[in-house]
Amino acid sequence: MNPIGKRYHPPGTPPGTLMPAEPAASLRITLVDYSESTFEERELSDPAEADAYLSSPTTTWIHIQGNPGTERLQAFGDLFGLHPLALEDVMNVGQRPKVDRYDGQLFAVLARPWFDGDDVAIEQVSIFYGRGFIVSFDTGDNDPFKPVRRRLQHSRGRIRTRSADYLLYTLFDFVIDTGFPLLDDLGDRVDELESDVLEQPRAAAAREIHRLRRHLLLLRRMLWPQREAVNNLLRDGDDIIHEETRPYIRDCYDHTIQIMELIEVYRDMASSILEVHLSAVNNRLSEVMRVLTVIATIFIPLTFIAGVYGMNFHHPGSPWAMPELYWYYGYPVVLLTMLFVAGGLLLYFWRKGWLSRVQ
Amino acid sequence: MNPIGKRYHPPGTPPGTLMPAEPAASLRITLVDYSESTFEERELSDPAEADAYLSSPTTTWIHIQGNPGTERLQAFGDLFGLHPLALEDVMNVGQRPKVDRYDGQLFAVLARPWFDGDDVAIEQVSIFYGRGFIVSFDTGDNDPFKPVRRRLQHSRGRIRTRSADYLLYTLFDFVIDTGFPLLDDLGDRVDELESDVLEQPRAAAAREIHRLRRHLLLLRRMLWPQREAVNNLLRDGDDIIHEETRPYIRDCYDHTIQIMELIEVYRDMASSILEVHLSAVNNRLSEVMRVLTVIATIFIPLTFIAGVYGMNFHHPGSPWAMPELYWYYGYPVVLLTMLFVAGGLLLYFWRKGWLSRVQ
Amino acid sequence: MNPIGKRYHPPGTPPGTLMPAEPAASLRITLVDYSESTFEERELSDPAEADAYLSSPTTTWIHIQGNPGTERLQAFGDLFGLHPLALEDVMNVGQRPKVDRYDGQLFAVLARPWFDGDDVAIEQVSIFYGRGFIVSFDTGDNDPFKPVRRRLQHSRGRIRTRSADYLLYTLFDFVIDTGFPLLDDLGDRVDELESDVLEQPRAAAAREIHRLRRHLLLLRRMLWPQREAVNNLLRDGDDIIHEETRPYIRDCYDHTIQIMELIEVYRDMASSILEVHLSAVNNRLSEVMRVLTVIATIFIPLTFIAGVYGMNFHHPGSPWAMPELYWYYGYPVVLLTMLFVAGGLLLYFWRKGWLSRVQ
Amino acid sequence: MNPIGKRYHPPGTPPGTLMPAEPAASLRITLVDYSESTFEERELSDPAEADAYLSSPTTTWIHIQGNPGTERLQAFGDLFGLHPLALEDVMNVGQRPKVDRYDGQLFAVLARPWFDGDDVAIEQVSIFYGRGFIVSFDTGDNDPFKPVRRRLQHSRGRIRTRSADYLLYTLFDFVIDTGFPLLDDLGDRVDELESDVLEQPRAAAAREIHRLRRHLLLLRRMLWPQREAVNNLLRDGDDIIHEETRPYIRDCYDHTIQIMELIEVYRDMASSILEVHLSAVNNRLSEVMRVLTVIATIFIPLTFIAGVYGMNFHHPGSPWAMPELYWYYGYPVVLLTMLFVAGGLLLYFWRKGWLSRVQ
Amino acid sequence: MNPIGKRYHPPGTPPGTLMPAEPAASLRITLVDYSESTFEERELSDPAEADAYLSSPTTTWIHIQGNPGTERLQAFGDLFGLHPLALEDVMNVGQRPKVDRYDGQLFAVLARPWFDGDDVAIEQVSIFYGRGFIVSFDTGDNDPFKPVRRRLQHSRGRIRTRSADYLLYTLFDFVIDTGFPLLDDLGDRVDELESDVLEQPRAAAAREIHRLRRHLLLLRRMLWPQREAVNNLLRDGDDIIHEETRPYIRDCYDHTIQIMELIEVYRDMASSILEVHLSAVNNRLSEVMRVLTVIATIFIPLTFIAGVYGMNFHHPGSPWAMPELYWYYGYPVVLLTMLFVAGGLLLYFWRKGWLSRVQ
Repeated sequence: MNPIGKRYHPPGTPPGTLMPAEPAASLRITLVDYSESTFEERELSDPAEADAYLSSPTTTWIHIQGNPGTERLQAFGDLFGLHPLALEDVMNVGQRPKVDRYDGQLFAVLARPWFDGDDVAIEQVSIFYGRGFIVSFDTGDNDPFKPVRRRLQHSRGRIRTRSADYLLYTLFDFVIDTGFPLLDDLGDRVDELESDVLEQPRAAAAREIHRLRRHLLLLRRMLWPQREAVNNLLRDGDDIIHEETRPYIRDCYDHTIQIMELIEVYRDMASSILEVHLSAVNNRLSEVMRVLTVIATIFIPLTFIAGVYGMNFHHPGSPWAMPELYWYYGYPVVLLTMLFVAGGLLLYFWRKGWLSRVQ
Repeated sequence: MNPIGKRYHPPGTPPGTLMPAEPAASLRITLVDYSESTFEERELSDPAEADAYLSSPTTTWIHIQGNPGTERLQAFGDLFGLHPLALEDVMNVGQRPKVDRYDGQLFAVLARPWFDGDDVAIEQVSIFYGRGFIVSFDTGDNDPFKPVRRRLQHSRGRIRTRSADYLLYTLFDFVIDTGFPLLDDLGDRVDELESDVLEQPRAAAAREIHRLRRHLLLLRRMLWPQREAVNNLLRDGDDIIHEETRPYIRDCYDHTIQIMELIEVYRDMASSILEVHLSAVNNRLSEVMRVLTVIATIFIPLTFIAGVYGMNFHHPGSPWAMPELYWYYGYPVVLLTMLFVAGGLLLYFWRKGWLSRVQ
Repeated sequence: MNPIGKRYHPPGTPPGTLMPAEPAASLRITLVDYSESTFEERELSDPAEADAYLSSPTTTWIHIQGNPGTERLQAFGDLFGLHPLALEDVMNVGQRPKVDRYDGQLFAVLARPWFDGDDVAIEQVSIFYGRGFIVSFDTGDNDPFKPVRRRLQHSRGRIRTRSADYLLYTLFDFVIDTGFPLLDDLGDRVDELESDVLEQPRAAAAREIHRLRRHLLLLRRMLWPQREAVNNLLRDGDDIIHEETRPYIRDCYDHTIQIMELIEVYRDMASSILEVHLSAVNNRLSEVMRVLTVIATIFIPLTFIAGVYGMNFHHPGSPWAMPELYWYYGYPVVLLTMLFVAGGLLLYFWRKGWLSRVQ
Repeated sequence: MNPIGKRYHPPGTPPGTLMPAEPAASLRITLVDYSESTFEERELSDPAEADAYLSSPTTTWIHIQGNPGTERLQAFGDLFGLHPLALEDVMNVGQRPKVDRYDGQLFAVLARPWFDGDDVAIEQVSIFYGRGFIVSFDTGDNDPFKPVRRRLQHSRGRIRTRSADYLLYTLFDFVIDTGFPLLDDLGDRVDELESDVLEQPRAAAAREIHRLRRHLLLLRRMLWPQREAVNNLLRDGDDIIHEETRPYIRDCYDHTIQIMELIEVYRDMASSILEVHLSAVNNRLSEVMRVLTVIATIFIPLTFIAGVYGMNFHHPGSPWAMPELYWYYGYPVVLLTMLFVAGGLLLYFWRKGWLSRVQ
Repeated sequence: MNPIGKRYHPPGTPPGTLMPAEPAASLRITLVDYSESTFEERELSDPAEADAYLSSPTTTWIHIQGNPGTERLQAFGDLFGLHPLALEDVMNVGQRPKVDRYDGQLFAVLARPWFDGDDVAIEQVSIFYGRGFIVSFDTGDNDPFKPVRRRLQHSRGRIRTRSADYLLYTLFDFVIDTGFPLLDDLGDRVDELESDVLEQPRAAAAREIHRLRRHLLLLRRMLWPQREAVNNLLRDGDDIIHEETRPYIRDCYDHTIQIMELIEVYRDMASSILEVHLSAVNNRLSEVMRVLTVIATIFIPLTFIAGVYGMNFHHPGSPWAMPELYWYYGYPVVLLTMLFVAGGLLLYFWRKGWLSRVQ
């Protein structure tokens, strides 16, 4: 699998072909049927059981959690008259978020991000919306929509008094808002990295910044088209979304923009932190080299002088054979010479400002 | 809280839900009611007290400073017929600036930046505007709009002679212009950093540039949408903004553009300063290494020569046992050799241009 | 040939001139003629043999694999009434993908990428589409469209029941989807490079990242215009593409966008990996220098001290001639002095944090 | 003042308020009144003197050089019916170039760049244009428009035969074209920097490139909106600009684009030069280190060997007490060993290619 | 002259002023007059000679090679009724490519790039197009349009059977296609640089990449507007370009896009190559430092030990005066100690992976 996790058909496969796939072990199909005054919730084992609810004037919402397998998916497709290309997109997970329209029906793909351990994972949420019904698919192991069913059951907020498009909005809103706690978490990491790097350079910082940027890259790729998808709902001139639901969708659209802005801000901050880190590593290197240079440069000439007077030239009769060695004040004179050399070099370094730390 | 300071609902909360919140201790509700000839200002403790002013033909402006708490906010919402989504945005501070319309009403969110110590902080200003009334909220501790009330009271400028949309403009203009002194201050920091870095490299410069860029990033995120929000007022085909107020809004729009341009210029300058800084650190390192290399490279061979003649080979009968040590001119010859080696190396370095400082 | 592989006419050549060219040795011309109930497939050696199929109401698809040579190309051009500029584009391979219209005919150029050993190679697929016929050219050695002919033969999917525009879509879809396995492969390389670089710095990493980026650059250049070309099919107001084929083309368009997004994500990741690599190389250098500095700085002064007492000053009568050498405790005092110096420097380095590894 | 030089009102000041300001010492007001056959030029000391010229059918152009002070500005505003917001913009210098319209009048702000010593300075030129009159303000010390008045006086070109909009064009053209010699000068600096950096690295280059970029940044900020302002004149559907003047304005628009392109090209070149400079500094460091390494690495082992045989082990009876020292060929053997070690290391470096200079 | 080579008027010059200029020594004026059946070609020395051809129904093309000088240019302007601003643009070479319209006439500026030795040079081609005539100017020394005249003469292709707009297209196509061989050459340089840099780092690479980027920058600046200019011909609703010529212009437009894409690809590749180069230089430095560190770090402690035992402490009666020197196994013990130290350090470096080369 590629790092992006997109599943695709081998080139040349006829469009709308459903690759044979076994249903997931954790597959659960939940049907909810409600109107302002009624509410019914049941598990389905067979798509055909949903047939009876279709003709009723109530709103019917079937949620399929986990891979339904080719056969069941096809059965749903036949029951609700879903387009084969849309069914193919439900199977080939990793689609980019979008909203398509097929003869009065609406097919949406959304991305639900979550932290799988330390990695960002994306589940695909596919939603079919038609007159009086919604069929939704989620590729994850656990059903994220339980809270929505509880709200329906207890009729909290306006949800039961509105038509099916409000439920559609509720699902969109729910999926999109899962981005906020995730970004909160990433924001904390940005903060931590920032204070780490500002305090002292750590070699691992570059790696951690890279990991963060990878998360942000993946999120941006999957969440950016969500903005367009929600906008697609708004732009529409047809009557799928009622006038009184539109402000809610607009609110939802605002959220997609806020999420994108957070991602961009984090990306910019990650880049800036990386630059601070690199600059700190550079400074540290510069500091290390300065200390080495000051100490080495002072002692290297002194050691040379000591080396000279450690030579064993010896010619009793020659006045040139290291006569200094036999002077009365030879040793202190050499020591003083060394002191002068060291002092001169120190003065030179002090003038260059190499003795005080670069701050 | 994330570094951006956005408050949000847990995913799945019904839209328009107001999270229970206590009113701020510093809560103050100020009502101003005025016409060209009248002016009244009073503190409100109960939203219901505003009811009487609503039916009058005068312009009524209620300003709520600090978090009003869930109950009072709901009371205002009921009194003025405010949309629940808008009320939710008033509570969930950290919204991006925007202008929304709900049946003839207008709801605006603006960002008021200020320096909280050394950090840039953003207060959210929320404004409802309807026929003859304005309700404004500010999340800060101190009321920034006092000067506007004084202008109303003393009828300075055109403010009392115009209708409520001119007051709306005044509040927009006021909030937007708070960006200028802030950017002035940031501009001073850019200037300081620049002259610091141009004079001599300091290790802390990278950190300070990062801090500056973080401020600019935050400001850009919050102030950029303000441009769009003000433009939204202008583009509008309806009659909320009167024709004679439009040049003022256009002026306001110019200010938002100027602010964004300043932010962009400062960002570009910060990047350029960082590059100069990194280049200076690099140069310094290069300079340090050059000095080390010149001195080490000259003395290392000399020390080796001295070392050779410090060896203790001794075989009285062998003509190979360091005979140089016993030559008449042995010592001066070695010293001269050393001088030649040093001179040769100096010549080599001089030719390479390593003896003159890199400027 | 330039690195991009574009063939062009010398400036000043009359437009529509076909440069004389020999047909490829591997040239194969395959004709397929089908309706819902009939299917015929044959090899052609002479363009004129296609004439009989043109007047029939069935759909005729002629595929020319390999360079047909100037004469045969011209013969096809005359037979189907193809525009000279389009014929020129068929010969001058390396065209950017596009869709042009000439009086009811449609001419498309697509890019089919594949791995030629380790390099990305692009074959040009040129497609003419008119009433009831499709003529396609592919510059490669092997016919990629065999699977499509098998689908036609066995009437898998909807392909035989639809008109020629569906075949056009099938060819587009086929060519575009060849990008996915290629990008999968590049994605694997990105992953490998990433884990390599995160584990330990390798000097070759920069070169490999460059090679990857070069592939991505080439792919982006050739695949980006494909998006526009497919969109061109959709935007069209005429009746070339039937209403029921449009959702399929839209699906195809989605694929082009997904491919571009993958390319962009890989480019961003390659840049980020390069930064991690450079930072790792930098850290390694810093680490190496730190070890050198600590060891050199400690031993250089000690060696100097040892050198001093290795000097041979000797004046029996002078109290200044290295009297330390003759003290009772001279040697241990010097050793202790060295220990103190070493200890002091170690303390200094420990305080600076240079003894613990930068992590 | 911020580095951008924008003057603004404290937030909360009523719009259109003119901050009290003294007129500049160098203030000069010049009135020119002309038709195809007449020409009059005079200095004004009092705005009221202009009154008589307003009613005449001739074109009247009043130019105010230097800050006119609050009172005189207000007097002009009253005389010509200028909008208070426009007057405020005349006072608050540092406005971004723009063209505004107020009831048939047109108000333009342009930026006139010049070199103030080594710095780029921007003067604000404000122009009011109405039926038959033009009022222009320039914030500089010296009147730049003298050549225009001379052209009017001597009726060079078409200027006197056309109506006031042609004069407006002339002023625009004049102000915009002041950018060319300035950019010429900056282009020379780019060229100089380039040949400097290509010849040999200088530490100051980074600073100079930064200064250049700062100039370009400032110019871009002020000149970019000028493009939009000129385009605003063209887009206009009203009759302010006559049909025969439009080609001239279009020419003027071309100039603004050329100026922006020059700025962008210089910015790109400055970045590229900086990269060359950094690479050269890096190379120099690498070269320095290579020399140090080669020399140090060769002599350090040799010095160690010499050090070993400088040790004073002495035990007359022990065969282990440095017997080499007493061998017949001890000394030449050690010298040969040293030669071999040095030769081996040289061979190693030669193989690594460290002996030849990196070119 | 600035690095871009733009000539401009001093600010304040009346528009349409032709700066006095002498005609070029190499000036050549060539007239071609043709219809489907006739063809005449002659040299002109005086613009007035062209008068006779104007009234004929044949197509007349006058090409002026080299600077015509002010007088002749004005004479052509009067003869064909050319707009003064367009004439000014013909003189002030270095204009950006564009297409302007003046009352049914069309004025085009194109850029013809060529290699002047190692530098990219741009000649300006100016074309006036009116009913039945074309006047073209080229600033170079040699006439590039000879091949076009030969095509006209020998009636190759469609050129003589079409009206003047086809000749206009031919000139556009010719000038634009001169970009291809140039970019081919630059592509070869990119390839060379790439393989150079991938093989081994050369200090000059950065300089060469800079030179390449400078060429590309210049080409981009001059060729980018050409795209817009050609598109301008296409967008036009008027009847200047006939319907059957439009596919040819579209083909020409495709070429401008291909040229821009090549330039962008080369720019991206140059940047990527520079990064590889910098990384290689860095790696080399790292490698050099590693070798220095390993050798220096091993021998520095050993040399210190040797130095210690080279000290001359001597006190016959003291047991503390370097008794090791007089041990029976003193020397071999010290040698073994040295071996252990060296071995320990080697082990340490081996564990750190510093002994194997960074690949």
